[in-house]
Amino acid sequence: MRLDELAKQIGAEIVGDGSIEVTSAATLEDAQPGQVAFLSNPKYQKQLETTRASAVIVASGVKEASAALLKAADPYYTYCLAVVALHGFRKHPHSGIHPSAHVDPTATIGEGSIVYPGVFVGPRCRIGRGCILYPNAVIYDDTLIGDRVIIHAGAVLGVDGYGFATHKGVHHKIPQVGNVVIEDDVEIGANATIARAALGSTLIAKGTKIDSLVMIGHGTKVGAHGLLVAQVGIAGSVTVGHHATMGGQVGVAGHLKIGDNVTIAAKAGVMADIEDQTVMLGIPAMPAARARRVYSVFMQLPELMERIKQLEQQIEELADSGDTPIV
Amino acid sequence: MRLDELAKQIGAEIVGDGSIEVTSAATLEDAQPGQVAFLSNPKYQKQLETTRASAVIVASGVKEASAALLKAADPYYTYCLAVVALHGFRKHPHSGIHPSAHVDPTATIGEGSIVYPGVFVGPRCRIGRGCILYPNAVIYDDTLIGDRVIIHAGAVLGVDGYGFATHKGVHHKIPQVGNVVIEDDVEIGANATIARAALGSTLIAKGTKIDSLVMIGHGTKVGAHGLLVAQVGIAGSVTVGHHATMGGQVGVAGHLKIGDNVTIAAKAGVMADIEDQTVMLGIPAMPAARARRVYSVFMQLPELMERIKQLEQQIEELADSGDTPIV
Amino acid sequence: MRLDELAKQIGAEIVGDGSIEVTSAATLEDAQPGQVAFLSNPKYQKQLETTRASAVIVASGVKEASAALLKAADPYYTYCLAVVALHGFRKHPHSGIHPSAHVDPTATIGEGSIVYPGVFVGPRCRIGRGCILYPNAVIYDDTLIGDRVIIHAGAVLGVDGYGFATHKGVHHKIPQVGNVVIEDDVEIGANATIARAALGSTLIAKGTKIDSLVMIGHGTKVGAHGLLVAQVGIAGSVTVGHHATMGGQVGVAGHLKIGDNVTIAAKAGVMADIEDQTVMLGIPAMPAARARRVYSVFMQLPELMERIKQLEQQIEELADSGDTPIV
Repeated sequence: MRLDELAKQIGAEIVGDGSIEVTSAATLEDAQPGQVAFLSNPKYQKQLETTRASAVIVASGVKEASAALLKAADPYYTYCLAVVALHGFRKHPHSGIHPSAHVDPTATIGEGSIVYPGVFVGPRCRIGRGCILYPNAVIYDDTLIGDRVIIHAGAVLGVDGYGFATHKGVHHKIPQVGNVVIEDDVEIGANATIARAALGSTLIAKGTKIDSLVMIGHGTKVGAHGLLVAQVGIAGSVTVGHHATMGGQVGVAGHLKIGDNVTIAAKAGVMADIEDQTVMLGIPAMPAARARRVYSVFMQLPELMERIKQLEQQIEELADSGDTPIV
Repeated sequence: MRLDELAKQIGAEIVGDGSIEVTSAATLEDAQPGQVAFLSNPKYQKQLETTRASAVIVASGVKEASAALLKAADPYYTYCLAVVALHGFRKHPHSGIHPSAHVDPTATIGEGSIVYPGVFVGPRCRIGRGCILYPNAVIYDDTLIGDRVIIHAGAVLGVDGYGFATHKGVHHKIPQVGNVVIEDDVEIGANATIARAALGSTLIAKGTKIDSLVMIGHGTKVGAHGLLVAQVGIAGSVTVGHHATMGGQVGVAGHLKIGDNVTIAAKAGVMADIEDQTVMLGIPAMPAARARRVYSVFMQLPELMERIKQLEQQIEELADSGDTPIV
Repeated sequence: MRLDELAKQIGAEIVGDGSIEVTSAATLEDAQPGQVAFLSNPKYQKQLETTRASAVIVASGVKEASAALLKAADPYYTYCLAVVALHGFRKHPHSGIHPSAHVDPTATIGEGSIVYPGVFVGPRCRIGRGCILYPNAVIYDDTLIGDRVIIHAGAVLGVDGYGFATHKGVHHKIPQVGNVVIEDDVEIGANATIARAALGSTLIAKGTKIDSLVMIGHGTKVGAHGLLVAQVGIAGSVTVGHHATMGGQVGVAGHLKIGDNVTIAAKAGVMADIEDQTVMLGIPAMPAARARRVYSVFMQLPELMERIKQLEQQIEELADSGDTPIV
């Protein structure tokens, strides 16, 4: 593809020779002639001078590089468009439902959806159009999935919620008569698990992207356009607003209400409701500015202990010296 | 079903009209006429006044509601019985071993057990009666499973323990010649993994319920009637007593002894033995009352630092003022 | 097998009767006559006096036991050799590619490799010789796997990296055009997930052993001979040196550089680069000696608060007594 053709397609402004040919995308560090790289993290700015890439997608402010520049207001998004233009998405080895998949006769699967070998789709499931179910994904009965949803290998949707009534020391299983609802454009990572609701529905709203090994408890509702990074665990009956971002290994206790546009840093432990627009951090999770102050003192605890010892010694000396004149 | 019939079946006392028809269970918030709801968490008590449910299962003390009451000593357990009575458990789409499952000819599977498509049962496994193995569960060789055990989709039992002898910088695999034993009435969550013992058996004792994505290390023995919530990880050679409860993402280090009736709060990191009847919390895990005091000060660390600074200033002033008279 | 034959095979020195027959390995505690046990952890030394084992593998310094001794410089490694000699590794129920596995016609699988039922191997994958792919493992397209690699049940290699460009509040999927490369002698645990690189390769270098439910992010490179214990999560674009050891549930943030011979204690949260030879601990992870001091004070925080209160009271008294003479 000619660089000027690419630039037009991705809406970038060329600084340099638009007639060169580009074939693929690469990192600034690894790029070879004929490749397009990008700079979105200023930390790697120095590599602009040494990259062998033929062109680099950059923010508008960038002036010079050893390569042609493709200037864009949102360089990471423009890079995304470039990778789509140059590489496209995966070409699947088959279309439709693979004969080695097991789809219950009462389930329906929309047009253009691809079901890989080893997938199980249970009774009464409804799967929309343009979905991809990768190998060995398991969709329990009654799960409803919208359009263009991607379910990665080994993910399990609609497994029984963890609901037991303990009576005289024995845990009795409560039938989990709810289901799981996945809206359009959701992506679910490999080996992630989403429990069906005890009653009603567990919901993953449109556009939310869930990473590998995430666990969503029964009856929890995750709002639209969320980002849940790997190994996040959300207990049951939680409500998460739209545009939530949770870093890896975050845990959220049950029955909480997490607002809109909330960001929770990796590994945090959320034990209370969170208001809209809040950034949270720590175990237990605190508003980030507060948490940074707490952890800053935490990491100085040995010195703080020394200061207390010194204070105690000074006090004793003062008390002693104060006694003397009296005697 | 008539309400009085349901009440009789679940052992509840009716306050209201027993002749009404009820068809299903729902939450207080979502219930419609014809549905039965329940109140076990006092936090939701206000919904008693507004619920549209036809009947609500409540504790004996509750007086009034907009619906008929079903009074019970243990309302959550009674609700469990009501859901069973009204909905029953999942009706499976097939019986016995599905032809797409792979059961080794040397394995035995008891009467009434259901094996879904994609399940693998390895050589010499013995699976009891009335078990359910959901799609793509994998049971490695020599695993012994009792009666009425439920293994959810993608769970892996009997995988090699993580045993390596490191010699001159190279990790040599130690054959894991033990197995996994699962007693009666255990439930294992989706994509959970239970490692086989290096020698002897990894054991999950009767009635223990394990949630999704839990990891149990090799040689560990989990006592009867435990509850291990999602993403718990227990290292190898741990002994856990009966009636243990571990919240989500708890981690337990290897070779420890956890007593009976121990509760460990979510995300805790257990690094030492725990006595019977103890509630533990925190990283590292401490007895809960102690941990609450520790975390209470932890969250006030910035203010504590201010108090130390103020003390230092006061001491300096005192020392200065103390000097003056001497001069 | 005669004990002296075993001793010769594993390079141990016999103290006792070499003519006895031994048949299998067991723990010191469980061993019966005819079995070989081992002592590597001094904590269990007392069991030497009571074990019913016929022989015990011990370090050179050990003097006496109720059994014959097999003295070795590295008893745990020598025990490993003994288990291999007495038990060998798993005998697989079939050879080659099981007909219930799905291997894409463009993939190649080396001589002596075993592919269990339900495994998926995608287009253009190359798998070396002597590998074992356990049931329901999923290998996405273009994954390259060396020789003698073991992939446990349900593990997913080459799943799309978690790469999205967020534009006007919508997350756009970035094609993940890289792949996963697994070098020789790597072992990957059950239900672990390794994401393919956005560009280039995610790498697990030779001899590294990965436990169950571990998550490796896209573009991350894990050096040779590492040990990643269960539920570890490493974000994307991380570089980990050789001989890394990470305890269970460790989390590593993205774009970091972890040196060679680094050990990270269980549950630690790594938020910054780590130099070679460092032992790290804590959330956030700190060099271990430092972390131990920090956590030691942390666990005394209630007492520390008391000391501050007492200091404040003493200061007030001193200030008061200082005032008196002036009046």
